[in-house]
Amino acid sequence: MQMADARAVRPVMLAVGGDSGSGKTTLTRGVVDALGPDLCVSVCLDDYHRFDRASRARLGFTVSHPDCNYLDIAEQHLQMLATGQPVLKPVYDHRTGTFGGMEYLQPRPFVIVEGLFPLFSPLSRACFDIKVMLDPPEELRRAWKIARDTTERGYTVEQVLDDLAAREADSAEFIRPQRRHADIVVRVTQDAGQDDQLSAEVLLRGTVPHPPLANILVDDPHSAMPLTIIRDSDGTPVDCLQVRGDAEPADIERVKQAIWDNIDRPQPLPISLGELRSGRRSETLAITQLLLLYHLLPKVDPS
Amino acid sequence: MQMADARAVRPVMLAVGGDSGSGKTTLTRGVVDALGPDLCVSVCLDDYHRFDRASRARLGFTVSHPDCNYLDIAEQHLQMLATGQPVLKPVYDHRTGTFGGMEYLQPRPFVIVEGLFPLFSPLSRACFDIKVMLDPPEELRRAWKIARDTTERGYTVEQVLDDLAAREADSAEFIRPQRRHADIVVRVTQDAGQDDQLSAEVLLRGTVPHPPLANILVDDPHSAMPLTIIRDSDGTPVDCLQVRGDAEPADIERVKQAIWDNIDRPQPLPISLGELRSGRRSETLAITQLLLLYHLLPKVDPS
Repeated sequence: MQMADARAVRPVMLAVGGDSGSGKTTLTRGVVDALGPDLCVSVCLDDYHRFDRASRARLGFTVSHPDCNYLDIAEQHLQMLATGQPVLKPVYDHRTGTFGGMEYLQPRPFVIVEGLFPLFSPLSRACFDIKVMLDPPEELRRAWKIARDTTERGYTVEQVLDDLAAREADSAEFIRPQRRHADIVVRVTQDAGQDDQLSAEVLLRGTVPHPPLANILVDDPHSAMPLTIIRDSDGTPVDCLQVRGDAEPADIERVKQAIWDNIDRPQPLPISLGELRSGRRSETLAITQLLLLYHLLPKVDPS
Repeated sequence: MQMADARAVRPVMLAVGGDSGSGKTTLTRGVVDALGPDLCVSVCLDDYHRFDRASRARLGFTVSHPDCNYLDIAEQHLQMLATGQPVLKPVYDHRTGTFGGMEYLQPRPFVIVEGLFPLFSPLSRACFDIKVMLDPPEELRRAWKIARDTTERGYTVEQVLDDLAAREADSAEFIRPQRRHADIVVRVTQDAGQDDQLSAEVLLRGTVPHPPLANILVDDPHSAMPLTIIRDSDGTPVDCLQVRGDAEPADIERVKQAIWDNIDRPQPLPISLGELRSGRRSETLAITQLLLLYHLLPKVDPS
């Protein structure tokens, strides 16, 4: 029995994991824009929820529990897409909390997958070329989630708070631990008193080769953008890039250009990087997006 | 990347192909009943229609055209089931002509697949242990289809006739030619003036080993149930079992028992075999169903 079509082209697969409201969509939007929307196909794993909102309420299940999702089917579909095959997938409507019609999805050169569980199982993880986890402090994630769910998903503030409380145990047990399987862990923080001014700690694990930044950034915690070697939770040395929201524009540009120079692209640096939901920009977000683009696009031959 | 779960058990897969109204559901109902409904999972490939009824009318498409179906997805799902994996499949509602929610289907020991296109592609055919095609004379199929569609699917006689006319070209080009890929081709005919008294010609191709009937049936066209060697369309010798609707009950029982004796089952011959939609029985249908059961169940060791 033949599973893969010999003519099928393997796409580049990006996983963006993170809890509800952690900024997955904001991060991937700029990435898709820079890659070219025509070359990308986006998959939100929320479409693989097993129950609609009403059934979940009745069953006392939260979507943050693996059993509340068809993770086996999501795995299948990720494998299909990774080997260049189309899938017929369900569609979950966040506004109504119900399932709509199905969607026939053919892979394109870039497949961007976001959701609560992309790094949960070995079979799912094996589908990705690059795995990212968003890990903002809980207070920030809660604020982001409240802002989104009350404006775009028809919830009241109270309902979102209830939802957060109901999901906390599952988040702690199933969502947050996926952090250890990511090649890149992004911890965005909000600068005190500065709306939309974001800083970030970006953990760059040795599971994939990252852009060579050590020659332009110094391992000095007092510098504007320190690149520090720290020990990962298992003791392995990893790079930690700190991007400060108040960094000098010139420093920011230097780092962005340094990453972009390693990517084999004729175009100048995409201007869509760094766009926030609010319409404003964050250079911290732009740098994070560039670090992902480095893994998705062909690299400059170092020789 | 690992596609199949090593623990997954491969089910036995039966394909029943045939045009709309050819008797697929009637044939498989008795087979499922004899196998034990708890051990069977049924898949109707109509669920993989690409468009709902309204869209088909607008587009001028008939479901008998391959492009009006997600055959690539059906192939995927058949492969998944054949290797013991679950699928999340669409559901088409024949009464309303629209799609309902998705269905999560886990394979069971027997997977019974019926539809217009089970034998259409090599990849689909490769999934099956035994492939059957129903090929009644067109007049009989039309009568059966009118009877069903006007009672169970909310059509008027005129609408069914229009549908038959619209589909004829596609039936001739895409559906009927699948006949040559079947291990067993069943041509049921209605005995003149006898409602529900059916005869059948059952072509038994050498692509699979059939029950040894040559020792109990004679190659004499004047006998009640002749087993004749004929030449297939490509010149290959094949067995053709003729079951006459007016055959003696004792002869029928002898053939049924002869087939059943080759099956390694402690139970007596299942009584549900041969039940028609009308509630009446057809021994011709029962014999056809037994020939399928022979391929689905463990055989008696011939030594």
